[in-house]
Amino acid sequence: MAKNLNFYPVILAGGRGTRFWPLSRKKRAKQLLALDGKETMIQQTVSRLLPLAPPKQFWIVTNGDLRPAIVKQLPKLPQEQVLAEPVGRNTAPAIGLAAFLLLRENPEAVIGLFPSDHVIGDEKRYRETLERGVGIAAAGANIVVLGIRPTRAETGYGYIETGGLFHGDALRVRRFTEKPNAERAAEFVALGSYFWNSGMFLWSAQTLVGALKEHLPKTAALLEQIAESYGTRKFASTFKRLYGQCENISVDYAVLEPRSAKGEKAGNIYCLPADFGWNDLGSWTALHEHHTAKSPPPEGNLVVSSDVFLLNARENYIHAPGKFVAAIGVTDLVVVETPDALLITTRQHAQDVGKVVKYLDEKKMNKLV
Amino acid sequence: MAKNLNFYPVILAGGRGTRFWPLSRKKRAKQLLALDGKETMIQQTVSRLLPLAPPKQFWIVTNGDLRPAIVKQLPKLPQEQVLAEPVGRNTAPAIGLAAFLLLRENPEAVIGLFPSDHVIGDEKRYRETLERGVGIAAAGANIVVLGIRPTRAETGYGYIETGGLFHGDALRVRRFTEKPNAERAAEFVALGSYFWNSGMFLWSAQTLVGALKEHLPKTAALLEQIAESYGTRKFASTFKRLYGQCENISVDYAVLEPRSAKGEKAGNIYCLPADFGWNDLGSWTALHEHHTAKSPPPEGNLVVSSDVFLLNARENYIHAPGKFVAAIGVTDLVVVETPDALLITTRQHAQDVGKVVKYLDEKKMNKLV
Repeated sequence: MAKNLNFYPVILAGGRGTRFWPLSRKKRAKQLLALDGKETMIQQTVSRLLPLAPPKQFWIVTNGDLRPAIVKQLPKLPQEQVLAEPVGRNTAPAIGLAAFLLLRENPEAVIGLFPSDHVIGDEKRYRETLERGVGIAAAGANIVVLGIRPTRAETGYGYIETGGLFHGDALRVRRFTEKPNAERAAEFVALGSYFWNSGMFLWSAQTLVGALKEHLPKTAALLEQIAESYGTRKFASTFKRLYGQCENISVDYAVLEPRSAKGEKAGNIYCLPADFGWNDLGSWTALHEHHTAKSPPPEGNLVVSSDVFLLNARENYIHAPGKFVAAIGVTDLVVVETPDALLITTRQHAQDVGKVVKYLDEKKMNKLV
Repeated sequence: MAKNLNFYPVILAGGRGTRFWPLSRKKRAKQLLALDGKETMIQQTVSRLLPLAPPKQFWIVTNGDLRPAIVKQLPKLPQEQVLAEPVGRNTAPAIGLAAFLLLRENPEAVIGLFPSDHVIGDEKRYRETLERGVGIAAAGANIVVLGIRPTRAETGYGYIETGGLFHGDALRVRRFTEKPNAERAAEFVALGSYFWNSGMFLWSAQTLVGALKEHLPKTAALLEQIAESYGTRKFASTFKRLYGQCENISVDYAVLEPRSAKGEKAGNIYCLPADFGWNDLGSWTALHEHHTAKSPPPEGNLVVSSDVFLLNARENYIHAPGKFVAAIGVTDLVVVETPDALLITTRQHAQDVGKVVKYLDEKKMNKLV
């Protein structure tokens, strides 16, 4: 697999991942945790993309709280390409800024947009899929989204409706949908033509810049100004001054949905079915399932501890590194212990963990968030 | 309330209280913990008896692991009267030794035998009851046991069957029974003539020495030898050499059951109904119930922590001092955290906590027991 000198991975790493509290914190968000294996999520993201592009072609967009740790975790990447947004403005300005920057560097640049906190099962297949996608994106004003074949009627994801083959196993995108209710989600899964929106996109810098100018002209002009100052002494102040004026909007909502509304052919949006094993680890429960799926432990208990005593305990996820854990007569619990906090919930309620962070934010208990 | 110069409280403090693991340890057993209020259980036991007898009349029987902490917790008591059994030999030798020692000191001595880890609701009433009991015990070769009126069909306690009034509200004891099964326990509660054996007894040193000589002659002879060496330089070695040869048996089984079998009148055993509020805090669940009964907290959650966030959480007992605790969607849990261990169980399963300690003992994980 040869490195592609036109391929630029742009990794979005500004999320807080509050559903992994109390392990995740403002300065140690989910992408900085080693939830799956020895490397952290963002280290894994970079590692599996490195065979496709040289380190100097990687860009990371994050925030000021996380930037120091990210730079430390990724010593091979150029520090000046780890950008800290002065304020969070969702994905459209983040990816847009990258597009303007890269267009100046290489007019043939193809941008791969990647979340920093997902798990990939088969990395070889993942890279093969990306190579095909980069080819499609480079071949014209095409936008390629990686779609995950749904395995359950998930209501937490956006869906992509496809229609008709294009270019091998790629599919034309008919429509992006918001997160559906349970009934619609079940319908989508049954139809077979719907995919989960993975948040992974491929498009040329040129296409993206053009789309932004069309759909978000005001923001595009601001981003262009910021990009022009890059590499000069004025960059930091320009970035700080203008970025907050950009619209706070996702690239899906700002560009992809209106674009797909143009119709299958005019939209030039294609979905590459991603059959490489994908998990966005959206909660402690998802992490538990991911780990136990690989090699099911006895009675489904996954316990991170110095040692453990289990009696009539099933399907629990317990994280208390360094401690002796005893679990007796408990089922489906999620318990996570850190030096300053203890979370006790269930597999079913783990999705509510973000509410703890909301509470802590409101109470200004800053040490705990 | 005047101090009684013939009353000698003998407090048994050799138990491990393994059902309070991970808070209770070999060197920090249940009686040394402040489970109820600011004072530890043994400090409370001594405090509530101090109005009845001067400090120099208190004796404590414990073991070598616990003696240093007990001496430290009870600075007002004479150190030399905190005895460490060389080996555990159950209650008959422990209380027997006290009887031989006290008979030498004061032939009129009335011994009060007290567990060191129980909770008493109304201390004034408790002391009034004891004063009456001491009177009965001093009036002849009488044995007085404090009986708790059963409030549920508990299978974890021994029961006392009574028959007929004696001396005010005292009752003649007909029979001591072993721990009953659920069916018999329910029957006992329904009959109204049965009481829980509280483990609190009153009898003169003379009566007790006589009873031991009759029922455990070999052990009585050994204890007499040990008592004779008390105060001499040979005491420690004699205690160590002979105590292990004593029978390993409870005073209930060795003396009270055979004595009650003699018949209501010959046995001279009386039960004083104890209406002062009593709880032996036999488990984390009992502790939770004891605390929530005094002043029911919202949703029945009792949380020891620096701060707490509760959402859809009911009837949980969570002990994580110094930590922020978040509990979401959990009910009836018992979670106890210490610097080296984390216990996760339910109110229903808390009685099995002793099994953790058994496991740790077997695995020789000595730091954790």
